[in-house]
Amino acid sequence: MASQRLIEYADASPEVRAVYDDILATRKTDYINNFWKALAHDPATLKRTWESIKQIMGPGALDPLTKELIYIAVSVTNQCPYCIASHTHSARTKGMTDEMLHELMAVVGMANETNRLSAGYRVEIDERFESQ
Amino acid sequence: MASQRLIEYADASPEVRAVYDDILATRKTDYINNFWKALAHDPATLKRTWESIKQIMGPGALDPLTKELIYIAVSVTNQCPYCIASHTHSARTKGMTDEMLHELMAVVGMANETNRLSAGYRVEIDERFESQ
Amino acid sequence: MASQRLIEYADASPEVRAVYDDILATRKTDYINNFWKALAHDPATLKRTWESIKQIMGPGALDPLTKELIYIAVSVTNQCPYCIASHTHSARTKGMTDEMLHELMAVVGMANETNRLSAGYRVEIDERFESQ
Amino acid sequence: MASQRLIEYADASPEVRAVYDDILATRKTDYINNFWKALAHDPATLKRTWESIKQIMGPGALDPLTKELIYIAVSVTNQCPYCIASHTHSARTKGMTDEMLHELMAVVGMANETNRLSAGYRVEIDERFESQ
Amino acid sequence: MASQRLIEYADASPEVRAVYDDILATRKTDYINNFWKALAHDPATLKRTWESIKQIMGPGALDPLTKELIYIAVSVTNQCPYCIASHTHSARTKGMTDEMLHELMAVVGMANETNRLSAGYRVEIDERFESQ
Amino acid sequence: MASQRLIEYADASPEVRAVYDDILATRKTDYINNFWKALAHDPATLKRTWESIKQIMGPGALDPLTKELIYIAVSVTNQCPYCIASHTHSARTKGMTDEMLHELMAVVGMANETNRLSAGYRVEIDERFESQ
Repeated sequence: MASQRLIEYADASPEVRAVYDDILATRKTDYINNFWKALAHDPATLKRTWESIKQIMGPGALDPLTKELIYIAVSVTNQCPYCIASHTHSARTKGMTDEMLHELMAVVGMANETNRLSAGYRVEIDERFESQ
Repeated sequence: MASQRLIEYADASPEVRAVYDDILATRKTDYINNFWKALAHDPATLKRTWESIKQIMGPGALDPLTKELIYIAVSVTNQCPYCIASHTHSARTKGMTDEMLHELMAVVGMANETNRLSAGYRVEIDERFESQ
Repeated sequence: MASQRLIEYADASPEVRAVYDDILATRKTDYINNFWKALAHDPATLKRTWESIKQIMGPGALDPLTKELIYIAVSVTNQCPYCIASHTHSARTKGMTDEMLHELMAVVGMANETNRLSAGYRVEIDERFESQ
Repeated sequence: MASQRLIEYADASPEVRAVYDDILATRKTDYINNFWKALAHDPATLKRTWESIKQIMGPGALDPLTKELIYIAVSVTNQCPYCIASHTHSARTKGMTDEMLHELMAVVGMANETNRLSAGYRVEIDERFESQ
Repeated sequence: MASQRLIEYADASPEVRAVYDDILATRKTDYINNFWKALAHDPATLKRTWESIKQIMGPGALDPLTKELIYIAVSVTNQCPYCIASHTHSARTKGMTDEMLHELMAVVGMANETNRLSAGYRVEIDERFESQ
Repeated sequence: MASQRLIEYADASPEVRAVYDDILATRKTDYINNFWKALAHDPATLKRTWESIKQIMGPGALDPLTKELIYIAVSVTNQCPYCIASHTHSARTKGMTDEMLHELMAVVGMANETNRLSAGYRVEIDERFESQ
C-alpha cells in the first residue's frame, strides 16, 4: 500500500461508493477526506469505521462541537498531524471560534503537564475518588 | 520524596497554606486533593500549577464542564489513573451525567483508533485542511 | 548533529563499516537504511542497536514476518513516521500482503481504542488474569 | 460510574444479555471479562465494540494468535495494565508459549527504543520507502 | 487559526510585544522562535507559558543544560518534531556536545525499551522502592 | 508467565547467575531488582538488556546522575510506575536531592505541555533549527 494512493469516487467499487455516498449525505458535503480514500483499500474497515464514527459523533448528551473538541484533544495528545488538521477543520465548520481553540489548547497542554506531575510524584488516588 | 508523603493543611508552611486557602475558596470546598498535597513539597510548582489551572479551567469561551471533559480525554489517552479518577470526580460535581461520560469515552476510544489508522496508512493531509 | 547528515559507506570508519558489512550480509541486500547512516555518528550505539536487532528479529518461536508486524504495531501506536515507513517496507519484503496489512491496522486501531475504554472506565483486572 | 461497578449477567438488560450471549457463544466460554461488564453501562458502546472486536479478531489473512500478539504489543506500548493482563491471557488460550511471549516482549521493547532513536536523530524517510 | 500564521514583532500588540521583549532580553538573543509567534494569537497562554518556562528553565539545583537534555528526552519520547528540533538547538547553544547528544539518545532509547519490558512482564514494584 | 514470578538467585541457572553476579559487582550492591528477576525467564533478553544498560548508564560525557534524571523523565512521560519507582530510587543513591527532583518534575511537566501546544498549533520548524 503506497502512502499516497487514494481511491477516488470514480474508481471506487460499489461497496466503497455506498460508504462514500453515506458520508456525503450525512455530512451534507461534496468532499471526501483523504482518510476515507486511504481506508477504502480495506472496505470492511472503511465501513466499520465510518459507521462507528457516524454513531458516535452525532448529537446526543454531548453536542457535535464538544465531540470535535474532545477528538482534537486526543489527537494533539497523540501527536497525530493528520487528525489534528482534519478535526480542527471539522470543529471550525461546527462553530469553533479562535477563543474556543485557544482555551482547548490551554486545557490540553495543562492536562498533559499535570498527568506527568501526578505520575512522577506517584500521587495516590484520594479515597473519595474511588467510588463515583 | 516518598510516594505517600502528603502535606496536610496543619503542617503546611504559610506559602503553601496561601495556595491551599485559594484552592478552598475558589472551589468552594473544604477538601484539598492529594495532588496538591504532594506538590506542596515544591511550593514554587504548587503555586505556578494552581495559578495556571485556575486561569485555564475557569469559565470562558468554553464552559468549565467542557474543560473537564477535555481534561479527562487527555488523561485517558495518557493512561493516567490519578488524573482520570480526580477529573471524573470534578466533572461529576460540574454536572457530567452517565450519558455524557459514555459519549466522552466513545469519542476518546474512537479518536485513539483513527489516530493510528491515519498514521499507519500514512494519510497525507488534505490541501484544504492546510489553511484554516 | 544535522537532521540530514548521513554517513555513507565510502565515508565510514572501519568500525562503522564493519557494522554496515554485517547488515548487508545478514539482510542479503546492497542497501543501508538512513536509520543506520544516522546512527553511525555514534558507533557504539550503531553496533549495540544492530546487534540487538539482529538477535531479536531473526527466526525463533515467532517467524520474522510476525516480528515485523509487531514492530509496525508499536511504531503506529507511537506515531513514528520513519519506523512505520521502514518496517512496512521490511514486512513487504518478507511477504506481507495487502490483506495482512489491513488486518494489522484494524487490530492496532481497535487495541488503541479498547486500551482507552478500559483505562477510562478504570476496569479492574479479573482475578483469573492475575496468575498466568 | 463507579470504577468497580460491573453488570453481571443476572442483572443485565435483554440488550446487554444479547451481547453477553454472543460473547459466550463466539468464544466458547462461560466467562465474561470485567471489560465487557464495565462497558455494559453503555449498551451502544458494548455492542459496537464487541461487534468490531468479533469482526477484527477472527481468522483471516492473519491467524487469531498473531492478532493477539499484535494486541499485546499495542497494550504494552500504551502501558495499559488491564489490556496487557487480559490479552496475555487470551494469547495463552490460543497457544502462546513462553518463548513466543519472550520474543514478543523483546521486539516490543526494541521497537520502542528505535522509534525514539529515529525521532531523536530526525532521520529522514528513505526515498525507497515512500512508495510501497 | 492557520498552521502557518505567525505574529511578527512588527505586527504584535503591546501585550505580546512585552512578552517578546522579555524573551529577547532573558535569552540575550534577537530571535523569537516560531513557537512563541504561533502562541501569540492567545496572549494569555503566551504570557503564562513564557513565564512558566522562564521560571523552570533557569539555573537552580539543575543547570540549564541538564534541563535542556531532560526537555529533549521528553520531546523524543513524545515524538514531537518541533520540540526536538528547537530544544536540540537550545541545548547546542548551552554547550551540548555530540558525545552528550549521543549518550542522551542512548539513554532515552533504552528507557523507552525497559519501560515496556517492565509493563509487559507486569513487574511488581520492589518494596524498598515504595518509600523513598 | 505469572506477573509475580520472580527468579531468585538460589533458583537461577548458571547463565542467569552470571548476569546477577555482574549486576551485583557492577552496582556494588547485594540487591537484585524485581525487574531483572522477571526478565530472568528469558536469559537472552536478561543478558542483552543488562549489557546495554551497563554500557549506556556508566560515566561518559554525561555523568551517571544526569542519566538517571533522563531515565526518570522518559518513565514519567510514559506513565511507567515501575520505572519511575526504581529509577527515582537509583537517582537517590546517586545523589539526587529533593530540589533536583522538584526541578526535574517541573521540566518534565512543562515539556509535556509545550509538546502539545506546538503540535496543536501545528508550528512549523524554524529554518535555523533545520541544520544543527
